[in-house]
Amino acid sequence: MVSHPPGGGARAVARCIALREPPFSAEPGMLFRAYLTPAHGAALGRLAEWMREAGMTVRLDGAANLIGRYEGWRDMPPLVMGSHIDSVRDGGSYDGPLGIMLAIEAVEALAASGKRAPFPIEIYAFGDEEGSRFPASMLTSRAVAGTLDAAGLEMADREGVTLADALRQAGERWEIVTGRAPFGETAPFGDAAQYLAARHPGAIAYLEAHIEQGPVLEAAGLAVGVVTGIAAQLRYNIAVTGMAGHAGTTTMPLRRDALAAAAEMVLAAERIAREAASDVVATVGRLSALPGAPNVIPGRVDFTLDVRSLDHGRRDSAAAAILDAFAAIADRRGVALETGQTNDFAASPCDPALMDLLSASLAAAGQPAFRLPSGAGHDAMNMAALCPTAMLFLRCAGGISHNPAEHVDPADAEIALQVMLGFLDRLGETL
Amino acid sequence: MVSHPPGGGARAVARCIALREPPFSAEPGMLFRAYLTPAHGAALGRLAEWMREAGMTVRLDGAANLIGRYEGWRDMPPLVMGSHIDSVRDGGSYDGPLGIMLAIEAVEALAASGKRAPFPIEIYAFGDEEGSRFPASMLTSRAVAGTLDAAGLEMADREGVTLADALRQAGERWEIVTGRAPFGETAPFGDAAQYLAARHPGAIAYLEAHIEQGPVLEAAGLAVGVVTGIAAQLRYNIAVTGMAGHAGTTTMPLRRDALAAAAEMVLAAERIAREAASDVVATVGRLSALPGAPNVIPGRVDFTLDVRSLDHGRRDSAAAAILDAFAAIADRRGVALETGQTNDFAASPCDPALMDLLSASLAAAGQPAFRLPSGAGHDAMNMAALCPTAMLFLRCAGGISHNPAEHVDPADAEIALQVMLGFLDRLGETL
Repeated sequence: MVSHPPGGGARAVARCIALREPPFSAEPGMLFRAYLTPAHGAALGRLAEWMREAGMTVRLDGAANLIGRYEGWRDMPPLVMGSHIDSVRDGGSYDGPLGIMLAIEAVEALAASGKRAPFPIEIYAFGDEEGSRFPASMLTSRAVAGTLDAAGLEMADREGVTLADALRQAGERWEIVTGRAPFGETAPFGDAAQYLAARHPGAIAYLEAHIEQGPVLEAAGLAVGVVTGIAAQLRYNIAVTGMAGHAGTTTMPLRRDALAAAAEMVLAAERIAREAASDVVATVGRLSALPGAPNVIPGRVDFTLDVRSLDHGRRDSAAAAILDAFAAIADRRGVALETGQTNDFAASPCDPALMDLLSASLAAAGQPAFRLPSGAGHDAMNMAALCPTAMLFLRCAGGISHNPAEHVDPADAEIALQVMLGFLDRLGETL
Repeated sequence: MVSHPPGGGARAVARCIALREPPFSAEPGMLFRAYLTPAHGAALGRLAEWMREAGMTVRLDGAANLIGRYEGWRDMPPLVMGSHIDSVRDGGSYDGPLGIMLAIEAVEALAASGKRAPFPIEIYAFGDEEGSRFPASMLTSRAVAGTLDAAGLEMADREGVTLADALRQAGERWEIVTGRAPFGETAPFGDAAQYLAARHPGAIAYLEAHIEQGPVLEAAGLAVGVVTGIAAQLRYNIAVTGMAGHAGTTTMPLRRDALAAAAEMVLAAERIAREAASDVVATVGRLSALPGAPNVIPGRVDFTLDVRSLDHGRRDSAAAAILDAFAAIADRRGVALETGQTNDFAASPCDPALMDLLSASLAAAGQPAFRLPSGAGHDAMNMAALCPTAMLFLRCAGGISHNPAEHVDPADAEIALQVMLGFLDRLGETL
């Protein structure tokens, strides 16, 4: 058993903070690191140094993912660990990077004790998860999992730069990353063949540590938890049309108030998700009422509905019940209802055997074997197309994320690192 | 009894439509006639012609109200009739002008039969009711009622032109209105003494015909109705602060959703106003939810609350019950609530004896003596400071107003004219 290196978790946290400012962020005073930007390149340069210090060889793949590799003592497909290095605009320090830093610390701990796992370990720093630059998200884990083909190279950012061009430009400038031209004798970045070669040939498993981005662990008083899977998601645009009217002259019985109808719908969505008493969540996040004057009864309201659950059946039956309730409300109130589905993302359950390994590692670290679903999407949901996946969530203060106030306690990171090392031990024992 | 002139109501309607386009509107294709603009001056010029044709003398007062006067057979204070000639931007043809046109038709009918009432009749075309130009509304009926002092002359429009300057400029250009310099030997427009002289020395009553701007008469299948008074109004800005969070990662029990809380409040306001089963109306007309992303639980919602009733007690107890309900909802949901009052307008009840005269005139015209409150403000609410007031509402299609689709059936205008003539007869009999 590899012992827990004192301070490794704290160093992982400190390294996340170290990447907050330029050149690792596009702007001083806030973190913004988008895919294939100079800030991305600079962060990969620093990551490459840390990976090498931990005893790894470093390479870039054709989708600009940085990969550190630590050989095992058997010739077999690797265990992949990692997360994403990009951020949203004005984001927090930990959403993504912490999973990479903890994986580096885990390898560092192995190397420091002169040990190897039976399997090779590859640490991926995925280049795009947030979708901060191109009109799609999770481009890079999809490339690695082979679920995004070369046609994706044609998509353009807001300045009209295609993914292929952005890759080419980055390839020309990023010698810093590997200390030589990124691909040596291989095809340059931005080439379709090279891009497709980013698809991983096969891994035994994928483990991602990530901040929870929600309040569940904090509410339970726990540092870490085993993720059961990533929720399936449905999203709708809803339009309610009643009759606008003068707020003073239209008596209550004669109103067809689109906002009052929408208010009932907001509460119906909340009630149905609550009554499911499961992992189902339903959210109305955006709502606009028109014409929007204090003395005019709203004639039209547009809002979004987002419904998620780890289980497709629960998600779909909750969504159906909510839409049924909407229709009944619209009917009773004499307002028109239009519903349009905009997203339907499948669930990505984590591997039960890997969850058990994580649970055993939690127990060994003196932690309750707490399990929780992930309502947010993560690279792991794409990697599931490639291999069995596991995720470890870390508590984040107040559940706050996508915000500079994002905070992780270094003591929680120490626990997470201990659990990850335990997972490596236990995974090796299964082989 | 003065007989109903065939087609007078239809002509009143046609004259409203005739004033929709330039030079009577600031723009072709839509009606926009703001106070003291060239469109206002042009409309007064045409009104002056129609007033003279109906047998009236015409003058302007120091607030740029056009006044047509038809003498009575006794030397006594006049009955004032009228409404406003200005409009909102892209407004309807009837909101305001119809009350002036019907009053002109009533005098025309008297004159055509060679009759006079015991009292003089003055028809006021008020210059500003909508507040389309200066940062206040109903400036001119307040000047006539003596409730707006000369300090008001200093208020400026969006271009920085003061009311005093705008009056002066209009005075220089509006010779067309009366066929000579507006005030002859008197002080010019814009002079404080002249402005204060717009205050009426005393009237026996004020009668205003106006479109309902709501759906009550249409729902009741009636052409006209007797207004019982103008509602008292309270207005608030409400802010609800919960906790923003990720729509996927924040489980239902852990949410403090500001929009769900606001939705309950919208419905509480509606329920309390409905349960009052009176003339109380409560409206949330403007609502914004922040940050406003489909995958983020709203952390803050701002909305307006407007509460009205003819009776201050009913209005205030409904508003208090609504605010109490808001506080209870905020408490239960753990969200913060801020409420700020922005308006508190007193009610203006119509005169019971004048209402009875209108009711008798309705009955004589074969109409049910239907009574209804006005939720919207009108010049009559200011004239109430000067003399007893009465209002006659006309049905408008769909309750639609402040909109080019505003529509009045000429047959309804005929009935209204008949009722107004009956009112003149009956008022004369009481003297």
